[in-house]
Amino acid sequence: MPSTTPALLVPTPGQAFERGTIERREVGPHDVRLDIAFAGICHSDIHQAREEWGAGIFPMVPGHEIAGIVTEVGSEVTRHAVGDRVGIGCFVDSCRECENCLAGEEQFCLKGNVATYNGRQYDGTPTYGGYSTEIVADENYVLRIPDGIALDVAAPLLCAGITTYSPLRHWGAGPGKRVAVIGMGGLGHMAVQIAHAMGAHVTVLSRTLAKKEEGLALGADDYVATDPEGTGDAGALKELRGRFDLIINTVSADIPVDRYLQTLRLNGALVFVGLPEKPQTFRVFSLVGGRRSLAGSNIGGIRETQEMLDFCAEHGIASVIETISADEVTEAYDRVVRGDVRYRFVIDTATIPA
Amino acid sequence: MPSTTPALLVPTPGQAFERGTIERREVGPHDVRLDIAFAGICHSDIHQAREEWGAGIFPMVPGHEIAGIVTEVGSEVTRHAVGDRVGIGCFVDSCRECENCLAGEEQFCLKGNVATYNGRQYDGTPTYGGYSTEIVADENYVLRIPDGIALDVAAPLLCAGITTYSPLRHWGAGPGKRVAVIGMGGLGHMAVQIAHAMGAHVTVLSRTLAKKEEGLALGADDYVATDPEGTGDAGALKELRGRFDLIINTVSADIPVDRYLQTLRLNGALVFVGLPEKPQTFRVFSLVGGRRSLAGSNIGGIRETQEMLDFCAEHGIASVIETISADEVTEAYDRVVRGDVRYRFVIDTATIPA
Repeated sequence: MPSTTPALLVPTPGQAFERGTIERREVGPHDVRLDIAFAGICHSDIHQAREEWGAGIFPMVPGHEIAGIVTEVGSEVTRHAVGDRVGIGCFVDSCRECENCLAGEEQFCLKGNVATYNGRQYDGTPTYGGYSTEIVADENYVLRIPDGIALDVAAPLLCAGITTYSPLRHWGAGPGKRVAVIGMGGLGHMAVQIAHAMGAHVTVLSRTLAKKEEGLALGADDYVATDPEGTGDAGALKELRGRFDLIINTVSADIPVDRYLQTLRLNGALVFVGLPEKPQTFRVFSLVGGRRSLAGSNIGGIRETQEMLDFCAEHGIASVIETISADEVTEAYDRVVRGDVRYRFVIDTATIPA
Repeated sequence: MPSTTPALLVPTPGQAFERGTIERREVGPHDVRLDIAFAGICHSDIHQAREEWGAGIFPMVPGHEIAGIVTEVGSEVTRHAVGDRVGIGCFVDSCRECENCLAGEEQFCLKGNVATYNGRQYDGTPTYGGYSTEIVADENYVLRIPDGIALDVAAPLLCAGITTYSPLRHWGAGPGKRVAVIGMGGLGHMAVQIAHAMGAHVTVLSRTLAKKEEGLALGADDYVATDPEGTGDAGALKELRGRFDLIINTVSADIPVDRYLQTLRLNGALVFVGLPEKPQTFRVFSLVGGRRSLAGSNIGGIRETQEMLDFCAEHGIASVIETISADEVTEAYDRVVRGDVRYRFVIDTATIPA
């Protein structure tokens, strides 16, 4: 039978969160039910709850950084068992037939995968995310969280972790490679740790030196203030010409693209994982001089997400979090927008029931 | 002793060509002298002769698509002998010490290589290009033209050929890959032939179908008119969403970048080899959805240029040319700008002496 689950809802775009309930489906043969322990707050939750990325489905229950414990499994389930520590990321289903799904790149499902919230199952049912106490999902879209990582600091790995791991892997971060990370926030602090663990030389490019000490402690080798004067032109980059093999841009603000491109070596790539709303501009000369690339990356597939979780456990990597209660989520959104969090808010979902 | 060589000169920016003479240096121990037989006209010759890319060195003798016969070799020369069929491309020297030169990517020399014309040798001497009857150059920057290719149709390979070969190789054009070529001109008609010979499925994306028959004859599998109505929005691309692995953009006009990005499959790249003057714009969403790249490529290194010449000889590939005399060069520039050439002008340098 379907079950009623306490959740934090945004009734209409941009409104404060309210406590309420949603319905979770019956556990089908291939489904698992989990008790959600923690749910991270991703900047994209805010964009969607405020309808900044186009029309949303309301009431909305955000949350795609979910960590919890399996409490029930369907008759055909083989991947998970009751009591397992598991997580759910940005999607809970995909077509499983297109060339991208078959390649394990379900994040690029050509039919469109089923977003964990603010989406619709293929039967049309709206999806609700992790700001709730339970969720039911197909076992193939549920990840194992290794014992080495506590659930609270694991939750953000399901989005922030894979969002940075995937491009670092794809563009070959490793020994001998110089990686720069633009932005020292929820995504950036993960990119620094992961790139360092992969063996790359890591430079943080942040507007100021405010988080330098923490950046170095997390594994950065260098930490450069790109805009200490607050002019926005990143003039400080001039001294870094031809330096990096890979830049991961984790900020969603507009950036002076050409200035960053000039800091790349031959064959270097500037990869966006943040999503600026406005079109960005570049000069073709900046690409042609050095066979440089501008690219984008979007989370990762299920197989790669599991690989990332295992990698993080092996290297002692986790998110640096601030745990909050259900009552603090509305305020936390404003703090995320201001950049006032080190480095990820995680909701203790035990505080959600009224 | 230095020698006096007949040449076509542009006295000041944008002026008509005049017959004159230039001085070529004495053949040093590592130099070869060649009788130039043919010199191709590249669109970048026009940009430079008209000073559209910043200040030039005048009088200017353009020409970096040079084919000819060795007439003299220095005492230490080992790579070439008198009588050899050879060519010179876009540069005649490089620092030979930087990481890019050491990697055989002299086109990206960090010191700056020595352009074949409108450049300066490292001692400050201005360089003069192929619109002349003789040239002296270091043997390491002189390529062998295989016997299978006539000198006139070989000349354009030294720029147009390598400019398209290099990105096709770098981004893996080959069997099972779908390659699109934007523009069916001097660069485009080479890209079509080379991509086809590499085994890729080739689609030409041209504004109209005017050159369709020739495109198919050169090896294209498909030929799509992107802008038959002349609106410039390339709306016809909508039907090609998710189709290509690689797009080589050979035009230097502004293009609707996002529309082209949408035609790429997962991991696809849109590579610029033409050089639009103005900044181009793109939406980051277009990159992130499909891990797509925008990139640029610039000619090729010496080793790769030789590989390209050998590849073209092996596959019977050459430029499709219209041979002109020295008297026709000024007019030919206007025709290139109008796109009125199929597909490359080549100057018969025997017509240069007054």
